[in-house]
Amino acid sequence: MSGQLLIGVLGGMGPLATLDLQQKIIEETPAARDQEHVPVVAWNVPQIPDRQLALAGKGPSPLPALLAAVERLNRIGASHIVIACNTAHHWYDELAAASTAPLLHIVDACADELRAGAPDKVGIIATAGTLAAGWYQQRLAAQGITALLPAQAELERLFVPGCYAVKRGELQRGGELLDELANALLARGAQKLVLACTEVPPALVAVQSRSLPLALDPARALARQCVRLWQESQRRSNVDAALERRT
Amino acid sequence: MSGQLLIGVLGGMGPLATLDLQQKIIEETPAARDQEHVPVVAWNVPQIPDRQLALAGKGPSPLPALLAAVERLNRIGASHIVIACNTAHHWYDELAAASTAPLLHIVDACADELRAGAPDKVGIIATAGTLAAGWYQQRLAAQGITALLPAQAELERLFVPGCYAVKRGELQRGGELLDELANALLARGAQKLVLACTEVPPALVAVQSRSLPLALDPARALARQCVRLWQESQRRSNVDAALERRT
Repeated sequence: MSGQLLIGVLGGMGPLATLDLQQKIIEETPAARDQEHVPVVAWNVPQIPDRQLALAGKGPSPLPALLAAVERLNRIGASHIVIACNTAHHWYDELAAASTAPLLHIVDACADELRAGAPDKVGIIATAGTLAAGWYQQRLAAQGITALLPAQAELERLFVPGCYAVKRGELQRGGELLDELANALLARGAQKLVLACTEVPPALVAVQSRSLPLALDPARALARQCVRLWQESQRRSNVDAALERRT
Repeated sequence: MSGQLLIGVLGGMGPLATLDLQQKIIEETPAARDQEHVPVVAWNVPQIPDRQLALAGKGPSPLPALLAAVERLNRIGASHIVIACNTAHHWYDELAAASTAPLLHIVDACADELRAGAPDKVGIIATAGTLAAGWYQQRLAAQGITALLPAQAELERLFVPGCYAVKRGELQRGGELLDELANALLARGAQKLVLACTEVPPALVAVQSRSLPLALDPARALARQCVRLWQESQRRSNVDAALERRT
């Protein structure tokens, strides 16, 4: 197997988000039988200190647990590693530096898809912690894309109560609040939206938000990048096999 | 992490069944936050030769690929290994012999739950290949449970077309056929049913089969065994911590 593609999923944040990414990789793969699906190994070990608390300075850093997971995924032979959590990308640089296998970045996966529409401005719906850290904006800017952020008042009045409503299972109530936020960003000039928080996509679907055709789910963008890597590796294997037959 | 519980899922047969087992482990865990969920590493690499073809003598053995997966799961530090596929348990003995981490057996997980009701006879709904191999019956017998099998004519008229209907997405049609088979086994004296084929549970749910309260989904039984192991390991950690505080 060495030398072959194997997607390592650094997960556990939380365990359902790790399943969600695996599900999206399967959904995005054009496969007629089991053997055509992407090879994945998922590290779904949720004993990782809370990321939001750590960013708020109220809890221990998750970095040691994340580094241990990266070490394990390298040991099992992952050829590429993806992080099944937006917020954990805060520690991307340290994790990438410690890994032999390259770490894909969820924002780069988004940028790959956003560039196709050549938008001037992209609205970002994310936690205050993620937005304050700035890496979503910076990494999109490096790809020539300008981020448009919710105002502080919008985060407090729409985003936070919207997300907590979803966490309580009140998708309709959460969807109404988050739809208002999505429309506010579009009204201010966003041509696309990045839904960089896992509560947002199901809530917008629940209220059939008109923003959905303009919205990108980063987990799905990351899943599609995994599928593209798998398809490229399959093509290379086929070329190698064809060359071998000729010699 | 060494010495701690880590459930290794030997999956990829197919990729969705591997997600299904992970989903059931999460559903069966009483957890109030991420960190209380079962630590799992899932080897979801579907490049394994077809199990049904191999058992029918029409394709290569999946054993080398399964052995390689077991080796990887040991290497990453799995403390226990579960196989997310009924049919692949055909190669259980060889895999268990090659693994340092103990392999749980899906039939033992079923027997643990079936014994509670002390049934005389348990109906098994499974592929002809699984039934012909005999390990479901033998392993239940070792636990004092007698298996009642579908007749050949029932497999041909009800099971096979029922499963293929489900695979085509015709849950209602498949459910009618499989419900008839379930009722036939109950009429012949089965007090419980084991639904040892992943197509069966969703089809019986689709037709609201009256057999469902008597039916056991082996993947859910295996998931519950994983959760019990995790709870025991947590209790042991708590006792160790308490003893350490006293000394």
